Amino acid sequence: MSSGTELAEAEEYTMNGGDSTYSYHKNSRFQRAATDVAKATIEKAIMEKLDIRRFSPAPTTFQIADLGCSVGPNTFVAVQNILEAVRRKYVTQGLSSQMPDFLVLFNDHASNDFNTLFASLPPDRQYYAAGVPGSFHGRVFPDASLHVAHSAHALPWLRKLPEELLDANSPAYNKGRVYYISAPSQVLDAYAAQFAKDTAMFLSARGKEVVSGGIMVLLLPGRANGIAHSCVLSDVMFDLLGACLMDMAKEGKTNEALVDSFNAPVYTPSPEEMTAITERNGCFSIETMDLTPFNAKVDGSAAAHACTMHVRAGMEGLIGKHFGSEIVNELFDRFFEKAKESSDRISSAFLHGCQLVVVLKRK
Amino acid sequence: MSSGTELAEAEEYTMNGGDSTYSYHKNSRFQRAATDVAKATIEKAIMEKLDIRRFSPAPTTFQIADLGCSVGPNTFVAVQNILEAVRRKYVTQGLSSQMPDFLVLFNDHASNDFNTLFASLPPDRQYYAAGVPGSFHGRVFPDASLHVAHSAHALPWLRKLPEELLDANSPAYNKGRVYYISAPSQVLDAYAAQFAKDTAMFLSARGKEVVSGGIMVLLLPGRANGIAHSCVLSDVMFDLLGACLMDMAKEGKTNEALVDSFNAPVYTPSPEEMTAITERNGCFSIETMDLTPFNAKVDGSAAAHACTMHVRAGMEGLIGKHFGSEIVNELFDRFFEKAKESSDRISSAFLHGCQLVVVLKRK
Repeated sequence: MSSGTELAEAEEYTMNGGDSTYSYHKNSRFQRAATDVAKATIEKAIMEKLDIRRFSPAPTTFQIADLGCSVGPNTFVAVQNILEAVRRKYVTQGLSSQMPDFLVLFNDHASNDFNTLFASLPPDRQYYAAGVPGSFHGRVFPDASLHVAHSAHALPWLRKLPEELLDANSPAYNKGRVYYISAPSQVLDAYAAQFAKDTAMFLSARGKEVVSGGIMVLLLPGRANGIAHSCVLSDVMFDLLGACLMDMAKEGKTNEALVDSFNAPVYTPSPEEMTAITERNGCFSIETMDLTPFNAKVDGSAAAHACTMHVRAGMEGLIGKHFGSEIVNELFDRFFEKAKESSDRISSAFLHGCQLVVVLKRK
Repeated sequence: MSSGTELAEAEEYTMNGGDSTYSYHKNSRFQRAATDVAKATIEKAIMEKLDIRRFSPAPTTFQIADLGCSVGPNTFVAVQNILEAVRRKYVTQGLSSQMPDFLVLFNDHASNDFNTLFASLPPDRQYYAAGVPGSFHGRVFPDASLHVAHSAHALPWLRKLPEELLDANSPAYNKGRVYYISAPSQVLDAYAAQFAKDTAMFLSARGKEVVSGGIMVLLLPGRANGIAHSCVLSDVMFDLLGACLMDMAKEGKTNEALVDSFNAPVYTPSPEEMTAITERNGCFSIETMDLTPFNAKVDGSAAAHACTMHVRAGMEGLIGKHFGSEIVNELFDRFFEKAKESSDRISSAFLHGCQLVVVLKRK
């Protein structure tokens, strides 16, 4: 059940709701670009890997879940891609007469803005829609009820931050930074261990919920095996955010203790890490694991602007809560300037930037 | 699908959201009392009528829907009653080893405050929970996916108002009133016809969604066969509301044209009417249809207060939208006074007041 002690300790990260200037709704272009890139992979996975003949009895309702759906619109694009591919598969396999109804289950934390999500549902959709509140690190669906599970850009958000980041006596104490870039290796290790633990919980829950023969598609910012985190776009953005916060602390516009006690709760894994976590779990076979470049060609001021809006949409809530909402506008003005100054680093990170598209199949 | 032209014309009535003084959340005591009364009926229906051995194959997920759930807390009480009765039935029938997971589908209009609903979900619930946005006058769930459907106090809300109520050339023109009490018989006929049409749509959709052997429990304010609407509590309340609005129009605090163009979109049917509609639909057998007295013993000032809060929680949104929110406080102050003055009529209506509990079984 999606409740109890396990959830009590979990943070509920939610993107900016509504549809205002800084909303996630209007500032999820990287995610949208990633969804477009993933479309071909999803179609291929469904056509080649989804094992609809193994479903027994033949489902009258085909259930698709999007885990960490936020408020749209990307979730609607993703589930539409999945639904069309599944329908095509039924047709090409000569199973048109068994075509089921489709139920799409939109999952996110209970504090997600489901009212906005529901108001944005495509009016011409060819599926029944339900919102499912609860942390996907625990159980949120009944046993063996999902045929296709999808999660885009939600898995990198840690369930909780490693406690040692705040412990002045720990070698992983993350003083003067808000992320693991430029930090002692113990900080990175603590993040990596937390990500591995959280992802194991995620896989364990989905292992019960996805039917045998069903598939799961995971999209997340990725890092090529052997490439340093400091070269990866999403990681660079959080490094710049930390630098802006420290500048403001030095000028007395916030204070260093607040910076010391704040850490961005996201992690960028490599294929090697994802493979190891998945194999340890044992419920899923790895069908494909591709690193694909970002398909958003922007540089200079446009790149800086896109990075600023991206980080703001995802982090404004957490930052406002921790530092006070009065610093938010200045912080992101500074972030934009710093991103422009760092355009070489960002351009290079765009080159290295990539997303990990993982296709798993329930054994 | 829960979209398209049929929905485009439907009004979306929603109760006051949040949990403030005038919220539905805090002012649904009549509904709560009704739910308590209905508990025994629901348990009996599940023990005696629900045909779990007819479900084939045996469901791994037992699906319970509450249609028109609003934001709680009554919906949680109702589904808990249902769930416990179903679990008991599995046990007493020697089917404990087949005990399924439970998924509760909370349905209401997309404009319902699902965020409040989700935040209020009982943390120790023994079921998976999902919110399903969309009008229950159309399809909102996949084919044959519900084992128990429940709807309390939602069915009396009309999908739309009969157009002739606003037509000055029609004998059903409802000038100077906001309800069918004290109106020409054509007004009542128009309401009754609309209720019959809407309920037929409801039954037609549920006929596709409820599995064979599954049951549906409907709770609504009821009127004994042959008793005049003017004697029924819920109808009396709307009559008083109309009188208050006309008083304010005469004093220039609103205007008569606005009163003429407003009608309360609810209807109180009799068992005879419900029987006729259900038999015309043909999908369901009528297992029981009981009229039970309200179990809320209040009179005098307490009754007036309860009526005021009840009507305000349900109608404030519609009234504010039509007349302007600035009249709302005075209107309900006046309503309270008028309800006190009418305490004999209200006490008598409490005596006649009753709710209709209908248990249907999918053929």
